[in-house]
Amino acid sequence: MEDVNNVIEIDNVKLNEDETEVVYIDQTQLPNRLVYYSTNDEKECYTAIKELKVRGAPCIGIFAGYAMYVLAKKYIDLEYAEFRNRMDEISGYLYSSRPTAVNLGWALKRVEKIIEDNSAKFVREIVELIGLEAKKIHQEDMDMCDRISEYGLSLLKDGDGVLTHCNAGPLATSHGTAQGPFFLAKKKGMNIHVYADETRPLLQGARLTSYELSRAGVDVTLICDNMASIVMKQGKIQACFVGCDRIAANGDVANKIGTSGVAILANYYGIPVYSLGPTSTIDMNCPDGDHIPIELRDPEEIKEKFYAEPMAPKEVKCYNPSFDVTDHTLLTGIVTEKGIVYPPFDENLKKLFEK
Amino acid sequence: MEDVNNVIEIDNVKLNEDETEVVYIDQTQLPNRLVYYSTNDEKECYTAIKELKVRGAPCIGIFAGYAMYVLAKKYIDLEYAEFRNRMDEISGYLYSSRPTAVNLGWALKRVEKIIEDNSAKFVREIVELIGLEAKKIHQEDMDMCDRISEYGLSLLKDGDGVLTHCNAGPLATSHGTAQGPFFLAKKKGMNIHVYADETRPLLQGARLTSYELSRAGVDVTLICDNMASIVMKQGKIQACFVGCDRIAANGDVANKIGTSGVAILANYYGIPVYSLGPTSTIDMNCPDGDHIPIELRDPEEIKEKFYAEPMAPKEVKCYNPSFDVTDHTLLTGIVTEKGIVYPPFDENLKKLFEK
Repeated sequence: MEDVNNVIEIDNVKLNEDETEVVYIDQTQLPNRLVYYSTNDEKECYTAIKELKVRGAPCIGIFAGYAMYVLAKKYIDLEYAEFRNRMDEISGYLYSSRPTAVNLGWALKRVEKIIEDNSAKFVREIVELIGLEAKKIHQEDMDMCDRISEYGLSLLKDGDGVLTHCNAGPLATSHGTAQGPFFLAKKKGMNIHVYADETRPLLQGARLTSYELSRAGVDVTLICDNMASIVMKQGKIQACFVGCDRIAANGDVANKIGTSGVAILANYYGIPVYSLGPTSTIDMNCPDGDHIPIELRDPEEIKEKFYAEPMAPKEVKCYNPSFDVTDHTLLTGIVTEKGIVYPPFDENLKKLFEK
Repeated sequence: MEDVNNVIEIDNVKLNEDETEVVYIDQTQLPNRLVYYSTNDEKECYTAIKELKVRGAPCIGIFAGYAMYVLAKKYIDLEYAEFRNRMDEISGYLYSSRPTAVNLGWALKRVEKIIEDNSAKFVREIVELIGLEAKKIHQEDMDMCDRISEYGLSLLKDGDGVLTHCNAGPLATSHGTAQGPFFLAKKKGMNIHVYADETRPLLQGARLTSYELSRAGVDVTLICDNMASIVMKQGKIQACFVGCDRIAANGDVANKIGTSGVAILANYYGIPVYSLGPTSTIDMNCPDGDHIPIELRDPEEIKEKFYAEPMAPKEVKCYNPSFDVTDHTLLTGIVTEKGIVYPPFDENLKKLFEK
């Protein structure tokens, strides 16, 4: 366990020095305790994902790649057929920890393909290739984040105030997507004032976003979600930067619950709204937001989780959706690693993929 | 202590049977424990207000009236001059518990005036008059609530969904203002679906509104403040009923933080927005919302209060305003005990007071 106030850089997921274990932060203990764990144990890898110790779609992918690498090393002396069987088992086991996390299956498949495509090589060589693939997954994510951060920052000027909703910084991705520009601004000596919504439910904005921004020295002010209107009215906000979990072909954006409200308020006050995320979240087969299913979460999350005592009686009904859909007409632009997309989104998203 | 699930009616503040003590609910223990206290002790009366065990402007006024009555009874054998001195001391002491609560000073002054105006009478008679005045304060509040509830309910039809923000039910007032129509609907057998915002900060919507509505058998669903947009979009909301802490002469309304956001969202989705409250909250000397000061609350309320562990690091700044101002252009109407006021609010509020 490390002193929370004594660490400058957050390395969310990485390999240990001799590359025998994957190191990760237990995000469930933040912001009160910054605890790193290091493991090459299958069950611990599974539990880390299942119990949301490792969370954020990109980070789950990076973790899965490294986990497959350090686990593969333990079976380096097996024959190919046995090795492949064992790795298939491990992959299936890890996948079952959180089957809805798209990046998990995607990263595991990349590793499986390495094993499949190199059946003629020695197992020792294959394990090396798995390591390279895992590092590539990580590097690709960093490059994607860096490009999104650069494009995002190009929309801001020194002294701007930006409202952000949810957690899409280095704890969820390698270098941050929706919140990446704030870290980049700090590195470049630019002064950006961030207003972080606490983001009910689960309070990721309070627990994670405000935590990682303040650690990086970014000027961040935490507000409750229902205070977005007053800070916009007071002229404190020059832009809204929100994330995206899925973008439809017409530009409708599904993101953490409350994002559509932020966008409506910003439009009322004449403030631009940008959704930032990788092109991998754009689903050209999904025509519009009405086709994006909204996951409902456990009501106890609102009434009991985090609290010393329940905040509402057991018999009270709760409606607790994870996401909402922001209509594309409310968005000023969509910031991806391939550039900034402006309206008309249906045409311009198509062009983005034709490039 | 009473079983929370075994009580139908909430009597927030009342006299005990022989009228020697004032009985009140300790609201700080809700929704987990419904605890009534009964007292004729000065210090306990002071503490009950100071520590927000008794809260809600109208209820503080009712409590202050009854407290003065039961305390006066203890000095019934004093000479008039001594009695008046003692009661002045008590009034000043109770006033100091929460000087910003307008109804507290207002109720205490009404009792002081009774003592002042009846100097020729026996103290025993004066104490009886104080009792009558205290009951009058209570009765006036019930009448006011009942009229607001009737006017409010006239805006709804069977089966409507209504979004409400903050706590302005029988725990804060005698019979409820902004939430009064929901209790009245239940009594009349009308079916209204209430969506109660949890209302950060302090979560009064979760802790108190959802609690008292569900106890009364009203169909209530608790949502986080940032879910207002999605329930409106889904067509679940036919009207928004919000309270008011102060209304300016042009119709701008100061109410619990987040109300302006609710109103902007409702306007976007074409849903009517009504502010409900007594004419005593309309301040014709205040030209507009810019002249209403916004009280800031302790940041620890967002980060620590209610939680088992802090939700954000100590060093993170918080902005925690109590109220925001909803522009009059966003309001469909203002519902008072004297009727419903529609735009143009500047003209029609003036007419309301000329009646």
